[in-house]
Amino acid sequence: MKDTIGKISPVKEEFIEKAQKRLDNLTKPPGSLGRLEEIARRLVAITENMMPSLDKKAVFTFAGDHGVTEEGISAYPKEVTPQMVLNFLRGGAGINVLARHAGADVVVVDIGVDYDFGDVPGLLDMKVMRGTKNMAKGPAMTRDEAIKCVETGIEIANGYAKKGYKIFGTGDMGIGNTTPSSAIAAVLTGKPASEVTGRGTGISAESLGKKVAVIEAAIKLNRPDPGDAVDVLAKIGGTEIGGIAGVILGAASNRVPVVIDGFISTAGALIAYCMEPKTKDYMFAAHNSVEIGHKAMLEKIGLKPILDLDMRLGEGTGAALAMHIIEAGLKIYKEMATFGEAGVTDEIIN
Amino acid sequence: MKDTIGKISPVKEEFIEKAQKRLDNLTKPPGSLGRLEEIARRLVAITENMMPSLDKKAVFTFAGDHGVTEEGISAYPKEVTPQMVLNFLRGGAGINVLARHAGADVVVVDIGVDYDFGDVPGLLDMKVMRGTKNMAKGPAMTRDEAIKCVETGIEIANGYAKKGYKIFGTGDMGIGNTTPSSAIAAVLTGKPASEVTGRGTGISAESLGKKVAVIEAAIKLNRPDPGDAVDVLAKIGGTEIGGIAGVILGAASNRVPVVIDGFISTAGALIAYCMEPKTKDYMFAAHNSVEIGHKAMLEKIGLKPILDLDMRLGEGTGAALAMHIIEAGLKIYKEMATFGEAGVTDEIIN
Repeated sequence: MKDTIGKISPVKEEFIEKAQKRLDNLTKPPGSLGRLEEIARRLVAITENMMPSLDKKAVFTFAGDHGVTEEGISAYPKEVTPQMVLNFLRGGAGINVLARHAGADVVVVDIGVDYDFGDVPGLLDMKVMRGTKNMAKGPAMTRDEAIKCVETGIEIANGYAKKGYKIFGTGDMGIGNTTPSSAIAAVLTGKPASEVTGRGTGISAESLGKKVAVIEAAIKLNRPDPGDAVDVLAKIGGTEIGGIAGVILGAASNRVPVVIDGFISTAGALIAYCMEPKTKDYMFAAHNSVEIGHKAMLEKIGLKPILDLDMRLGEGTGAALAMHIIEAGLKIYKEMATFGEAGVTDEIIN
Repeated sequence: MKDTIGKISPVKEEFIEKAQKRLDNLTKPPGSLGRLEEIARRLVAITENMMPSLDKKAVFTFAGDHGVTEEGISAYPKEVTPQMVLNFLRGGAGINVLARHAGADVVVVDIGVDYDFGDVPGLLDMKVMRGTKNMAKGPAMTRDEAIKCVETGIEIANGYAKKGYKIFGTGDMGIGNTTPSSAIAAVLTGKPASEVTGRGTGISAESLGKKVAVIEAAIKLNRPDPGDAVDVLAKIGGTEIGGIAGVILGAASNRVPVVIDGFISTAGALIAYCMEPKTKDYMFAAHNSVEIGHKAMLEKIGLKPILDLDMRLGEGTGAALAMHIIEAGLKIYKEMATFGEAGVTDEIIN
């Protein structure tokens, strides 16, 4: 983990400037493609390549269970986590459909599901533990377990970078996982739990009150250190959140752009950002989730989401959808004609 | 034109409800795919087909010139209109790149360019006039010319619906065309010109003042009747704006969804909407343009844009980009597994 973090360097301004020069020479008024141009500049700077490619894409969907579901904070029973993992492997879930649409592979990782899958084709078995412990009664994980989750993400990112994948997306599956994500948001943004806790997959107003109380109690009991992201991840986090943080650290150390999905993924991104703020340069925020704590975390990192479609499914669905827009940014940069090539007047008269 | 308008009927609520039933049975919490679900419902209702397809897509980019450029209200000289048309035909413009990315064909229509293209392969020659007249000195078009522009759009929509195209996008090219679009916005939303006039392709603050004054003067001189959209189109509109309005009327009469690009396309959409408000049911607003008058027009029609990426290029670029999101909405609806198929528990416990 430390080695990986040591390899992360900020992107260089000179690449941003060089990309800008090309963008300003394309047959369009300067800046008129807005955020597509910003995306193109950032891709050039991240990859340090004037003509980058995004031909191989992967969304990593980390699945894990949460002991805190004992407290009745989720709309669905925890059996749904392994059921959905099997749905991912059969290609029937939202992430499968949207990743196919984006031309991305879905890599399903069991990092902490409380279920024995046996030997299931297609599942990446990297189980660190069978679900976290109930953070309402003690730390969700030990520090070593939390580090192992992060290192699992790093290992996956390194492997896929080596295989020639050019862009990563993050995703999650884990019944109950908006609860640790809200807890992380509260501790690392400094906001009260009530301001960063939402209805997840759709709990009632009454259950929402209980969820906030559980988060407040867990923070009070475990006293996570806001200056130590690994401590926060261990005490009130989750395995899949650690895996996501690791993928981001690994992506940044390999100069691979990484698309952060919604609320849970952004909790992972915030952990990674607090471990090494330079990771921010490598992240794209896919979309603005309906979950109320999402915005506070994106602001803390300093990311502006690409899409805003009232989505709150997770799995990496927002990341897959945003990949198309990111690829659009790259394509206008690479494929549009310049004023000279097209014989179009570029002199502004007014 | 009247025949076409007579054929437009509102979409039926029963199709929305049937589509909702299927959406609620897919392996995701109800409503968790937000606007993708809304898009899917609308596609079903528009096409009156429980399993619609979007396999053939076309973006119609209407090009026309504007006499009002004489007043010095644009950043670029009007020669750029035919130059960009040739750029479209060679495949080097923003719309070409983004339409390829969306899997859409680009149909370039000369509806009113002040240039003789001769016989250029790929250009749809439907020229109604060689540029509009200067609306600062009199009406931009006669009523007959305006109707001919709308009928041109209808004819194209009918033709492409017949060829089996399943979704249309609108686009524009015409140096100076934010000026008539702002004038239309002012007259049909009732807002002062200064509130709906922006910098177009990038004019100075001084030129912006002049542009507002030109629009105010043109409205005062020509007295377009806000209750008669064809009168507004004729007196202070443009050929491409009329063509776009026609495509929308034609799309609605053929039950084909139509994606409205940015500011100029929305001026065309507002003309179509004022001619027949039922057209609204068939429109998708692609994105939120940087042009300040865009929002007022979208609100008047009652459309919420899909994307918000600080774009202001026109050509149909936003429409092409939004087509991918619209197709994503359809794919989740058609391709996701149901709870039953996937063996996932759909009982909500909390």
